[in-house]
Amino acid sequence: MGEFELLARVRERLPPPGGRIWVGAGDDAAVTVPGGATATSVDALVEGVHFNRDDAGLRQVGAKALATALSDLAAMGAEPGEAYVVLTVPPGLDEEACLEAVDGMLALAAATDTTLVGGDVTRGPVLAFAVTVVGHASSPARFVRRDGARPGDALVLTGELGAAAASLLLGDRDVPGLSRSAAAELHRRQLEPLPRLDAGIALAAAGATAMIDVSDGLGADAGHLAAASRVGLRIEAEALPLAAGVAELAAAAGRDPLQLAVSGGEDYELLAAIPPQGLDLARLSEAGSAGMTRIGEVVAGEGVEIRRPGGQMLEPAGFDQLG
Amino acid sequence: MGEFELLARVRERLPPPGGRIWVGAGDDAAVTVPGGATATSVDALVEGVHFNRDDAGLRQVGAKALATALSDLAAMGAEPGEAYVVLTVPPGLDEEACLEAVDGMLALAAATDTTLVGGDVTRGPVLAFAVTVVGHASSPARFVRRDGARPGDALVLTGELGAAAASLLLGDRDVPGLSRSAAAELHRRQLEPLPRLDAGIALAAAGATAMIDVSDGLGADAGHLAAASRVGLRIEAEALPLAAGVAELAAAAGRDPLQLAVSGGEDYELLAAIPPQGLDLARLSEAGSAGMTRIGEVVAGEGVEIRRPGGQMLEPAGFDQLG
Repeated sequence: MGEFELLARVRERLPPPGGRIWVGAGDDAAVTVPGGATATSVDALVEGVHFNRDDAGLRQVGAKALATALSDLAAMGAEPGEAYVVLTVPPGLDEEACLEAVDGMLALAAATDTTLVGGDVTRGPVLAFAVTVVGHASSPARFVRRDGARPGDALVLTGELGAAAASLLLGDRDVPGLSRSAAAELHRRQLEPLPRLDAGIALAAAGATAMIDVSDGLGADAGHLAAASRVGLRIEAEALPLAAGVAELAAAAGRDPLQLAVSGGEDYELLAAIPPQGLDLARLSEAGSAGMTRIGEVVAGEGVEIRRPGGQMLEPAGFDQLG
Repeated sequence: MGEFELLARVRERLPPPGGRIWVGAGDDAAVTVPGGATATSVDALVEGVHFNRDDAGLRQVGAKALATALSDLAAMGAEPGEAYVVLTVPPGLDEEACLEAVDGMLALAAATDTTLVGGDVTRGPVLAFAVTVVGHASSPARFVRRDGARPGDALVLTGELGAAAASLLLGDRDVPGLSRSAAAELHRRQLEPLPRLDAGIALAAAGATAMIDVSDGLGADAGHLAAASRVGLRIEAEALPLAAGVAELAAAAGRDPLQLAVSGGEDYELLAAIPPQGLDLARLSEAGSAGMTRIGEVVAGEGVEIRRPGGQMLEPAGFDQLG
């Protein structure tokens, strides 16, 4: 397979220029007219490190490469815009397989109002994706950074935790008490994460003072937000929303489900600090197309405390220590 | 080595926000206020495919990864702006080595008024760079595309051809008639290409109707420009500027120097079509900090003709056929 031929076939699949995009793929560079301010993030998905082709379909892998990048834009409250990809193709992966991955990416792009504008194809030892995404806002101050949380703010989390960690822990085993459909749902969450773009925009519009996506685990990412904002975070463990099946899997594996939810990565939910005055979770949830749970508050001080009902502290561990 | 630790050390080296950049590395995304229009291009440099660590130093490799991406912006006539990098680190490459590559990138960034804003670090089987660059113009129409060449336009080429191809052909051999310093200069051109950003801006300002960077060889890239503009290009072989040492190397290797110059890639010069009225190459050369040579003209029709002095045609070959 030639790189030029593959690139040409990828380009045939890309949408024509329009909107902010003046020149799409095929020239030396894409030309856009952003207007206002842009948020730009890059992310990588590498075979053998972030995924294995035995476990995930190529469509899933392509979509996930875009999803993880878009999750960073969601955490800024950005309106999704453009994506660019460097696709590294290993020996033996044929053109149709590459296009399957691109089609997965294009399907998620369409579902999230993102335009895959262009990219590059190169040979390399393993399948890998480097994705650059650009999101938009009318002014730079509209983006939500990590460093604006203030004592007294409520902590709001989108969606549910623990599904991806549970999926990795489960593997292809059968676990008593966990139905096949529940197991499939856990795997789907790990293989096909969805970026919380609507939720990010809704939280930004509702006045979020700081926001981060939970890609490394709630404990770790809450720590990043606390450090950037120079505040402490107090989280109530009993308030944490666990994904269906996490409790069953944890019980069967002899694990603490809360520990799994707090330390497991790849949930791609959003954690936001937001002033509690007038906070309407039901409305936010509807505007953001995602469940919203108040899980704690911002306090003066530093670090993250996750308290169990009895007052005992839960120590978030790195996911590697769990696996 | 931990990815987080390396990422933190890379970030320490990045310049603080300023100018168009409101938020730099360390948040979920970088925030910029572009103003006008942007040109965006992505490029990759992969160990074992585009370079070998035996032949090139890590500073050189890092700089080249950025240079090849910036060359695409030069070909748009863009003002250089921001760069983002995904750095893939193989087992056994230590933190200091990675930082050497980053420092090479930062040095070229400083030399080209480019800001390396941020990026990501991941593990992977080989050293690889995926670089995204963003350039600027006051309006989208100011960028020079490939498709605007018109019959009667002059063809202008920056710099000289053949150095990179000669370097690869030379390897570490000694060639009679080629001095050590000339050989070293050929290798330097292959290992440390410089993007022609000033020249691109000068050619755009002088009214270039189409432009492309010569990364795949003059024959191939002239063909891309001709096809995009739906015109023919007539190039005079005797007008082609050969880099010093190319003739000597070609003679020693029993090759045609013109063939080497036309078919060899990686020169990263610019080829522009430009109306001949008032064309002042000396002034352009000074404004663009690069030699400028008129090498032919745009004609009605299609394809690329490269004519030897006697009228015989020179057939550009892919570089693989030469190696």
